[in-house]
Amino acid sequence: MTPPVPVPLDLPVTGAWRPGDPVGDRRFHHLPTDRPFNLEGGRALDRVEVAYETWGTLRGDGSNAVLVCHALTGDSHAGGRGGWWEELIGPGRPLDTDRYFVVCSNVLGGCQGTTGPSSPDPSTGRPYGSSFPVVSIRDMVRVQASLADALGVGVWHSVIGGSMGGMQALEWGIVHPDRVRSLVLASTTSEASALQIAWSHIGRMAVQADPRFRGGDYYDAEPGDGPWRGLMVARMCAQVTYRSDEAFSERFHRSVVDRFAFSMDAVFDVEGYLDYHGLKLVRRFDANSYLRLNRAMDLHDVARGRGSLRQALSRVRVPVQVASVRSDGLYPPAQQHALRDALLDLGRRVDYVDVDSPQGHDAFLIETGVLGPRIAEFLESIDD
Amino acid sequence: MTPPVPVPLDLPVTGAWRPGDPVGDRRFHHLPTDRPFNLEGGRALDRVEVAYETWGTLRGDGSNAVLVCHALTGDSHAGGRGGWWEELIGPGRPLDTDRYFVVCSNVLGGCQGTTGPSSPDPSTGRPYGSSFPVVSIRDMVRVQASLADALGVGVWHSVIGGSMGGMQALEWGIVHPDRVRSLVLASTTSEASALQIAWSHIGRMAVQADPRFRGGDYYDAEPGDGPWRGLMVARMCAQVTYRSDEAFSERFHRSVVDRFAFSMDAVFDVEGYLDYHGLKLVRRFDANSYLRLNRAMDLHDVARGRGSLRQALSRVRVPVQVASVRSDGLYPPAQQHALRDALLDLGRRVDYVDVDSPQGHDAFLIETGVLGPRIAEFLESIDD
Repeated sequence: MTPPVPVPLDLPVTGAWRPGDPVGDRRFHHLPTDRPFNLEGGRALDRVEVAYETWGTLRGDGSNAVLVCHALTGDSHAGGRGGWWEELIGPGRPLDTDRYFVVCSNVLGGCQGTTGPSSPDPSTGRPYGSSFPVVSIRDMVRVQASLADALGVGVWHSVIGGSMGGMQALEWGIVHPDRVRSLVLASTTSEASALQIAWSHIGRMAVQADPRFRGGDYYDAEPGDGPWRGLMVARMCAQVTYRSDEAFSERFHRSVVDRFAFSMDAVFDVEGYLDYHGLKLVRRFDANSYLRLNRAMDLHDVARGRGSLRQALSRVRVPVQVASVRSDGLYPPAQQHALRDALLDLGRRVDYVDVDSPQGHDAFLIETGVLGPRIAEFLESIDD
Repeated sequence: MTPPVPVPLDLPVTGAWRPGDPVGDRRFHHLPTDRPFNLEGGRALDRVEVAYETWGTLRGDGSNAVLVCHALTGDSHAGGRGGWWEELIGPGRPLDTDRYFVVCSNVLGGCQGTTGPSSPDPSTGRPYGSSFPVVSIRDMVRVQASLADALGVGVWHSVIGGSMGGMQALEWGIVHPDRVRSLVLASTTSEASALQIAWSHIGRMAVQADPRFRGGDYYDAEPGDGPWRGLMVARMCAQVTYRSDEAFSERFHRSVVDRFAFSMDAVFDVEGYLDYHGLKLVRRFDANSYLRLNRAMDLHDVARGRGSLRQALSRVRVPVQVASVRSDGLYPPAQQHALRDALLDLGRRVDYVDVDSPQGHDAFLIETGVLGPRIAEFLESIDD
């Protein structure tokens, strides 16, 4: 039996962004350097940098800004060619850039230009690697708030996100109730479930089990000698949990790559699909970032330090759009129903969107034709 | 960051059974050695041996025999102390051993006494390892048929199994319609789905990515130097797919191992649970067997070489009990409904059992209190 996927010798050690990488028209904001950025977990970071992208023009009164928050392996390139929400952002699109000033920044701990484990530690000049601290969703939001200040955005017309992006959007409504006029929360939750933590843990185990991970200090390795196999396995798991039995059956059923064989090598199309997506992520994502961001999601629990879920959500004072996908097994509708019902119970206005799609968790990225018009209507209904 | 699970130095290289291992009261059947055992995939095995266990006494006319088929990581120790279906097998239990002669054999390709990758290749005297051929569910059934001959069982009162065991039971009804009087198919399918193949493939990738796997030839390694990390990750994935969001939320929610911490180490109980189950399997199961049996399940498709699903199922001529679990996301009820409806359409008697349990796929092992009485009634209704 040969390894099912040959070693791709052209693989970088890490999929982290490097200056000059041509992904979107990024700009950078530097957080104040006169004091360290204190993290919720107790540690601190010096010289935090944020990569972000914007579309449209900010009104003089700063009232038309919309913040889009990306999910786990997303980045600041939400709009424009190849953007992960390209269909939603642009002139005449649901997030109409003739009207709104749309902002998306890469999250703290990420690998697409914002400070993360592959960034140089100012105290050593070498990548943080294993020494990069655990960050939280709340830390990500504090970095975004600093960016908002720098951009001159006092109050966001809306903060919008799906999955991990929705976690950030919800925290915005809780931490900065006066700086948002609405929230859009798609396929997300007020607290990570045991199932979500389980998958996150398995992804970590897969990466950490790879001897090329070297405990997180692999940045000195030769190209192709990073922890790509472990990250690939982690991504393959995620890829399945992001879809559904229904979607896989429809798309692949038992179709074969070449011809049917009694073989241990990849026989079925779905195997080739997973290999492809596993390798694709490895080329563009850093393993340490993958671990840190998954951990931030595990730790997500809006009730932490705030008494109860009800007490936490009572801080949200604006209309909220909540979207569910019926086939999402990872962030099942019950999570969004709980969020919706808790907000309704607190007297908040909730616009609930029930997306009837077989695409599973990834539907928030795929079903833009359904989500887009609903988001546009909702934003339209929010007073400046 | 340290590896989340310390290297267990006492781990065997392989979890394969060794003569003398005290698991049940096994006996062994040797297939005829005058000719090789030809496999469906085209290769052949010499000197196939089958480990099996029995409970109760075979009637003189051989009419009271029941074959229980185990699932992926099961073995022949179904009944008796610590048996995986202990609650179902015994005097006065649903498979009443005062009445039935119950047989369970370890499958071909397994690692609990039946010929598999860790068995010595007669041509070299050393373990097959990577050279062990791909086997199919139909091959497993042919080995069981040889055992039935040896035991003097002409016709089984019933062939019973869940998951991979149900695949074998269904093939029994198709390949040997005259040798069964009934079938019990729990949480199984007439063909592996794309989702099932996807998880199987990911498990293979996790094992093969482990450098200690050595392409499958790891039996000469020092203790603890086998592919335990890869197999552990594979098992952790499986463990999650065998349960459900509901079951995990109920059991673990966000409870913590010790105290809450902003840490990359295991913080949540569900992480400890997965580590425990991952390591537990590694101690008792062989990685090569894990790969071969998963592959046999991927290849399971009763229609293969038989025209169509309908043509294949038309060979089944006996009453069939089909059981579904509502929370099973891996073998979802739709698969058993399809099987039930196809059999009904062919005019067969079907007894359908709808198990209302949150336990997911593993409910066929856990919900013996629900399944047991229904199986007992069904067997009772079958004429000798």
